[in-house]
Amino acid sequence: MGYSLSHAFGAVLDNPELIAACVVGDGEAETGPLATAWHSTKFLSPVSDGAVLPILHLNGYKISNPTILARISPDDLAHYLIGCGWAPLFVEGDDPRAMHQAMARAMDLAIDAIKRLQEDARSPTPRLGTEGAVRWPMIVLRSPKGWTGPKTVDGLPIEGTFRAHQVPLIVDANHPEHLDQLERWLKSYRPEELFDETGRLIPELAALSPKGQHRMGANPHANGGLLLRDLRLPAIADHALTVPKPGAIAASDMGTLGPYLREVITLNHASANFRLFGPDETLSNMLSAVFEVTQRQWEAQADDQDEFLAPMGRVLDAMLSEHQCEGWLEGYLLTGRHGLFASYEAFIRIVDSMTSQHAKWLKVASEIPWRRDIASLNYLLASHVWQQDHNGFTHQDPGFLDHVLAKKPGITRAYLPPDANCLLSVVDHCLRSRQYVNVVVAGKHPMPQWLSIEAAAAHCAQGIGIWGWASNDQSAEPDLIMACCGDTPTLEALAATKILREALPDVAVRLINVVDLAKLAPAAEHPHGLSDADYDTLFTRDTPIIFAFHGYPALIDRLTCRRANRTMSVHGYREEGTITTPFDIRVQNGLDRFHLVIDALDHLPHTGTKGAYLKQAMQDKLQAHSHYITTQGRDMPEIRDWIWA
Amino acid sequence: MGYSLSHAFGAVLDNPELIAACVVGDGEAETGPLATAWHSTKFLSPVSDGAVLPILHLNGYKISNPTILARISPDDLAHYLIGCGWAPLFVEGDDPRAMHQAMARAMDLAIDAIKRLQEDARSPTPRLGTEGAVRWPMIVLRSPKGWTGPKTVDGLPIEGTFRAHQVPLIVDANHPEHLDQLERWLKSYRPEELFDETGRLIPELAALSPKGQHRMGANPHANGGLLLRDLRLPAIADHALTVPKPGAIAASDMGTLGPYLREVITLNHASANFRLFGPDETLSNMLSAVFEVTQRQWEAQADDQDEFLAPMGRVLDAMLSEHQCEGWLEGYLLTGRHGLFASYEAFIRIVDSMTSQHAKWLKVASEIPWRRDIASLNYLLASHVWQQDHNGFTHQDPGFLDHVLAKKPGITRAYLPPDANCLLSVVDHCLRSRQYVNVVVAGKHPMPQWLSIEAAAAHCAQGIGIWGWASNDQSAEPDLIMACCGDTPTLEALAATKILREALPDVAVRLINVVDLAKLAPAAEHPHGLSDADYDTLFTRDTPIIFAFHGYPALIDRLTCRRANRTMSVHGYREEGTITTPFDIRVQNGLDRFHLVIDALDHLPHTGTKGAYLKQAMQDKLQAHSHYITTQGRDMPEIRDWIWA
Repeated sequence: MGYSLSHAFGAVLDNPELIAACVVGDGEAETGPLATAWHSTKFLSPVSDGAVLPILHLNGYKISNPTILARISPDDLAHYLIGCGWAPLFVEGDDPRAMHQAMARAMDLAIDAIKRLQEDARSPTPRLGTEGAVRWPMIVLRSPKGWTGPKTVDGLPIEGTFRAHQVPLIVDANHPEHLDQLERWLKSYRPEELFDETGRLIPELAALSPKGQHRMGANPHANGGLLLRDLRLPAIADHALTVPKPGAIAASDMGTLGPYLREVITLNHASANFRLFGPDETLSNMLSAVFEVTQRQWEAQADDQDEFLAPMGRVLDAMLSEHQCEGWLEGYLLTGRHGLFASYEAFIRIVDSMTSQHAKWLKVASEIPWRRDIASLNYLLASHVWQQDHNGFTHQDPGFLDHVLAKKPGITRAYLPPDANCLLSVVDHCLRSRQYVNVVVAGKHPMPQWLSIEAAAAHCAQGIGIWGWASNDQSAEPDLIMACCGDTPTLEALAATKILREALPDVAVRLINVVDLAKLAPAAEHPHGLSDADYDTLFTRDTPIIFAFHGYPALIDRLTCRRANRTMSVHGYREEGTITTPFDIRVQNGLDRFHLVIDALDHLPHTGTKGAYLKQAMQDKLQAHSHYITTQGRDMPEIRDWIWA
Repeated sequence: MGYSLSHAFGAVLDNPELIAACVVGDGEAETGPLATAWHSTKFLSPVSDGAVLPILHLNGYKISNPTILARISPDDLAHYLIGCGWAPLFVEGDDPRAMHQAMARAMDLAIDAIKRLQEDARSPTPRLGTEGAVRWPMIVLRSPKGWTGPKTVDGLPIEGTFRAHQVPLIVDANHPEHLDQLERWLKSYRPEELFDETGRLIPELAALSPKGQHRMGANPHANGGLLLRDLRLPAIADHALTVPKPGAIAASDMGTLGPYLREVITLNHASANFRLFGPDETLSNMLSAVFEVTQRQWEAQADDQDEFLAPMGRVLDAMLSEHQCEGWLEGYLLTGRHGLFASYEAFIRIVDSMTSQHAKWLKVASEIPWRRDIASLNYLLASHVWQQDHNGFTHQDPGFLDHVLAKKPGITRAYLPPDANCLLSVVDHCLRSRQYVNVVVAGKHPMPQWLSIEAAAAHCAQGIGIWGWASNDQSAEPDLIMACCGDTPTLEALAATKILREALPDVAVRLINVVDLAKLAPAAEHPHGLSDADYDTLFTRDTPIIFAFHGYPALIDRLTCRRANRTMSVHGYREEGTITTPFDIRVQNGLDRFHLVIDALDHLPHTGTKGAYLKQAMQDKLQAHSHYITTQGRDMPEIRDWIWA
């Protein structure tokens, strides 16, 4: 999929003794995810990290076309690789014996150069590579495609052409005449010199193969779970907000998480097995506290106005490429370490296909007995769809949740903590987990805080639950269930509940908050799914449910469509709205408190005149809102200053 | 989103008089989608296409980090750009007056160079650029970030640092002290020299602005619908398969589409407004017929074994980058032309985020009265999840359907033609359509053909319908509805129906085939959605439905969850299986005829003993299948040789 080079970089981070040779096909080199990987050396410390030795294999063709890098001039190719920061060594030819010797020489030269660079950088008085000018070696291997395969088949050249890409020689019932050619081809490797009469590899050759952990398949870095050590994690209570009662304080969820992550970095500094990755958004996502104890790793030039850049640091966020951040993190996890990828919610879609492939890898690895579990791939998606103060329509895409929950249910998890203490609890859980893809969606703007850390931990451990303090159905069957998932929907669902309870005190409302989305799925479909009995206890079999959801409403529909209660009315993101006030984006998508109340009333026909007047009041509020923001440029005071209490 | 450069290349294709100047930010230049765009000149004809003049704006910073290209040595930067095939001109400095002059000189130089290259290439005896060595000019503009903005605010440098990225100077109720600074800053532009006392721009300056279509916002290329002309399309009947009765012949759906597309290319050759795009998969996706009348456009070196490469051609498929193919096509469409993007189904996920952004653009453009409609963005996804003869688990992802159907319903469409004649009808429809994102999923291996072209056209126009010839409920209420969507599910649903009808002739089965997925959505949610009355007529309100679906079952769940009939049991892709026989991948995911029959029986308890024996027979078949493929390496004869008749 074009990101093996990123994986290699991730693998050598914090592995100063490791040199990862990585073959990159010339077709692969044309793919978007890989193209920027060539710049990764700007983030690799020659002191505390290992090295990557890329081998660009220019065999000239992809499926049915030539490759670009094989058809530009040798001068341009050298310019390109030098421009990306490398010192390329060229190995070219088609005589196998001569090429083996040339390749061996190139490998020796490259490894020597890497070791010399590292020894110098690690000496007390480094002389090379000041100002980030370390230039690592790489190898360009130019050889025929399908080398030593059939020269021609049915009159068409195969070796050295694109035709060698797939099956060079078809031998089946329709092509019996190819059998002789297959035999000649295979005999060209002189098996009689390689094997004895019983078909066993001759001892001289068998003795050449590496032993023990030097075997490629037994290298512990290729089965990273062997090397995995638990993270040391701080007590979340030490970083929790004090929430005397629901809604009593406001705070930034991501801003609260920052000091916790700072502590994670500090506690695991000595073992060097945790890193934070992101596409230039650590500060923008409100995680600045981490820079109190570490820096951004950056090996290129720095100036006196740069902030938090250093040759070594636990944060890799100085390249604006989701592909590289993801690829580095995957490589880091696959070699037995831990990490977190913080990104804008909308732009994580850029790596949809990489997530799919990692989820597939985890699924297959989980089925192989000798593969040890690795740390989960943790996404922290902030700056989400409901925060559009100065971005806009292009920055709105909550669909990564749909994407990951379409993957193998045993592998993927999605969490939407409603406040900062829940976010702490969820992240703590994700960092302890193994072998999953975890997606956490969190806000960064100040928002009301609902739960004490004890209540948050209990709520998140269950993943879903009734908030009794917001409900008034304790002594009766509920007339209405107000469900919510995500920080903004929780705020609006609570505000709607308050309006309903004040205007219609006889209506029994149950408020349910969902943190762990998969709780809604049937137990047979997802390991986290509630049993039907538990689901029906919470949602009943027929009480109207108004569900305020962070993402596309269809995701709730598909998760709940097999449940007994068929009254679900979901409010969520409907691809509406661009730069506007925080409340107006909710109004445009029907997620605001007023629309929630109107929908609730549509499901409560027995509220009669009181209900009719309340609905009118809600419609008046929507008009007033529209008028106010158009004339004042900000939300109405009753929205801005709203509190639960 | 990092693909503006691809858009510019798409815009100048077939626009020989157009020179598209395109500013690329240095942060943007780090993104994966853009990185490979620098190689696009290898696909641009200096004769029949226009030219792109990239202006790499190196202002040194992204949100809170320096940029890579601004911090590598000037030598390395030059190497990099030369290696990508460009002749860079450098404009550097921070004195506005001097820089304006330097930039004007660079623009003149660049435009002159472009015109010289084009004149030469278009002359009867071109001298430059033999063997694809045309080297286009580009400009590197190195200037301070936040240039001429506030130098420092609250003691921190702003101009020339990352701090200029967002709001350089906050003026609000909390920062009244910044008001003076704002005034000084704005006055530094000497408004008294630019405007008269009434605030109007002085006539000398107003006279400088371009008139008519030279105004950037009035350039017809920026409102491509103004330039759009209908395609000339062949009669689909001329390319249809003769299908005497359902299942009478077998053929490759994509192989049948090839000659139709060949004709589309021929018919529109003179108007040069249709192109086929793809990541090196035109042949692999069985569209080779197009190369009977055109070539792949390729401006780099060619050798005597390359096939179908030429300096000019209607196919752009010689770069293995979904990002570029997509970006070029978008640019081509946005400037008023037509196109089709053919790709492997799994790897289209690489451009998920680009699809989202184009869908958002179409949604907003549709709301703006003066914007004219442009041709739809057409995806043709072949080599799909059910074709795993020699690929495997990594090549299986039918989730692009989920992705596009999550977007604004007015914009997106998804079609799964069950056979070749339906594919012709659907592609014909897509090429005539405007302002949509159309996704067509099609197979390439030989498969039974079901419908005559007349029946196919009628079926596709409705998008969904009962196949009476496969059903036996004509004179009774159906006992079971067997629904299917996609070529492979249709085959298995028909095979299951045949088994059921033969073993249990008293059971009335209705077979429904779905081509247009959105037909299943409620009418209120998608413009194509069936009314509840129409849906209930087809699916009834309570007859058990077994649905065989091409993609993830959850998509059918969420489309149908608001319908009355709650019996839907969906079979589809469950992330199981890798390289195996064509039938076994279906078995592993439960989409095969035997699992469909077993599930049908579970919904038909009244079939009694006959049903019990049939279920046993199905389980025996699954065992026999498993044994056969393990020992024989291919599917059982009864599967390979199965026919409907």
